[in-house]
Amino acid sequence: MNVTTKDRGTTGKSSREARELFRAGTRSTTAGWAPGHAQANLLSVPVDWAYEVLLFCQRNPKPCPVLDVTDAGSWSTLLAPGADLRTDLPGYRVWQHGELVDEPTEVTGHWRGDLVSFLIGCSFTFEAALSEAGVPMRHIEQGRNVSMYTTRRPCRPAGRLHGPMVVSMRPVPPDLLSAAIRESALLPDVHGSPVHCGEPAGLGIADLGRPDFGDPVEAEPGDVPVFWACGVTLQAAVMASRPPFAITHAPGQMFITDARDEQFRVA
Amino acid sequence: MNVTTKDRGTTGKSSREARELFRAGTRSTTAGWAPGHAQANLLSVPVDWAYEVLLFCQRNPKPCPVLDVTDAGSWSTLLAPGADLRTDLPGYRVWQHGELVDEPTEVTGHWRGDLVSFLIGCSFTFEAALSEAGVPMRHIEQGRNVSMYTTRRPCRPAGRLHGPMVVSMRPVPPDLLSAAIRESALLPDVHGSPVHCGEPAGLGIADLGRPDFGDPVEAEPGDVPVFWACGVTLQAAVMASRPPFAITHAPGQMFITDARDEQFRVA
Repeated sequence: MNVTTKDRGTTGKSSREARELFRAGTRSTTAGWAPGHAQANLLSVPVDWAYEVLLFCQRNPKPCPVLDVTDAGSWSTLLAPGADLRTDLPGYRVWQHGELVDEPTEVTGHWRGDLVSFLIGCSFTFEAALSEAGVPMRHIEQGRNVSMYTTRRPCRPAGRLHGPMVVSMRPVPPDLLSAAIRESALLPDVHGSPVHCGEPAGLGIADLGRPDFGDPVEAEPGDVPVFWACGVTLQAAVMASRPPFAITHAPGQMFITDARDEQFRVA
Repeated sequence: MNVTTKDRGTTGKSSREARELFRAGTRSTTAGWAPGHAQANLLSVPVDWAYEVLLFCQRNPKPCPVLDVTDAGSWSTLLAPGADLRTDLPGYRVWQHGELVDEPTEVTGHWRGDLVSFLIGCSFTFEAALSEAGVPMRHIEQGRNVSMYTTRRPCRPAGRLHGPMVVSMRPVPPDLLSAAIRESALLPDVHGSPVHCGEPAGLGIADLGRPDFGDPVEAEPGDVPVFWACGVTLQAAVMASRPPFAITHAPGQMFITDARDEQFRVA
C-alpha cells in the first residue's frame, strides 16, 4: 500500500516501529518519519566491488558520507541493532549490469552471501535541524518525496566506479538561506552544506518541475532552490558503471536508523 | 641533520619549499611549518590490505580521517600536485610484519608497485585555528614535537586490522578550553573535537611525562591536558596487526600538503 506523508501521522513513531511497518509491507517515502533519527541510503554490492565503492565514497564525501559498512553477507548494522537490512526499508531496487530488474518491498529472495552493504548519510537527517531553525520543508508540507536531480557534475571515479552527482533540492525563503546553510554545514556526515544555491542551470538541471527521482515540489514566490549532494549518487554510479549485481533503497524510501541526528552534529 | 622548531624560522615557508627541504634531507618535526597548509599522516600498504585499511579508517573516523588515497604504485596525490610521497616527508618508518626495520629520510629504495598510500588528517592542521583563537601551542613554543600516547581504548577492527587509539595531547589553559574544543570541532576531517579532556588515567595513560611518540611537553600551572585522536593510530594498527609490509611517516614528521586549512572547515 502507498501512504502519503499527510495521511500517516508518523511524528510519534519510533525508528523501530517505523521499520516494523516497512517490514510488514508499508511502502512510503520516509521523509518526516521518526523525527530525530538519522536515515540512510543503502547500497549492497558483491565483495569484489566493495573497495571501489568505499574509495568512491571517500573521493566524493559530500554525496556519499559513509555511516556504516557491513561484513560480507551480513544484514545487520551497528546503526540499528536487531534490524534486518533485507526487509526493513519501505522499498528496494535490484540491479543487474546497471539495469533495474525489480523494485520489491523486501529482498530476502535476492540476497547473496557475498554482499557488502554500505549505509550512506541522508539529507532527511538534517531536515529536523532545518525545521527547528524555522526553515519550511515544502515537500513534507505537500506530502511528497523530496525532488532529486542528476547533475552534469561528474564524481571523482574510483576504479570501475564512476557517475554524475545527484542532488536533492529544497525551496528556501531568502531570509532563511543563511540558517539553512549554517545548520546543514554542522552535519557534514549527512551531506553538510549545500553544493549550489540558486539557478539550476549551473548544475545542468533544465527543469525543476521534472525531477529525475522523487516528486516535483512547489516553491513559494521568492524561494531560492537550494541543492544538497544526495546519496542517490551511488545509485547513479550503479546505473553508469554497471556492476553485475547490486541492491539499493528506492529513492526517498530510506533505512531509518536508531542513531540520533545530534550524533552527527560537529558543533 | 636535526633542526628544532625554534631555530628554523619556518613561518614564511611555503608548502612546496618545505617539501623541497625535506626532499634534500632535512629532518624535523613539521609542527609549526608552512602555517595554513594542511599536514597529513602517511600509510602505504600492499594493495591486498587496502580495503581493510580504508574500512578501518571509516570505522574509526576521529583518529583516521582519510584525505586522499592513491592508486596502487602511485606516489602522487591531489593534495600536492608535483610532490613525491617517497621523498617529500622529513622522516619515514619501514615496517615488516609489524616490526620497525628502517627509519630513513626517503623510501625510493623500499618502494613497491603494489603500494596504496593513505593520507590521513593531522592535528597540526588545526593548530593555526587554535592559535588564532588565542590557545597557546606549548610544544611549538618549546621547540618540540607534540606528545602522543597509546591509549587503552581499542579501535573498531576491520578484517585483519586492529589496534588501540593513539592520541595527541596539548596543555590548554582552562579559560581557553571552550575555544579549543569549538575551533577543532569545526575541522572534523583533521580529528575534530577532543576525545578526552583532563585526567589521563581515563585513557589508560600513566605518565604524561613519558609519551609513546613525540616529545614530553611542559604544561603551565592550571593547564588542562586535552587529548585529540591522532593519525599515528594507523601506525599502532600496523604494529598490532603485522601486515607483511608497510611504510609510514615518522611520528610528527608529516607530509605538508598544498591544501589550505580552511578547506577542511565546515562552518
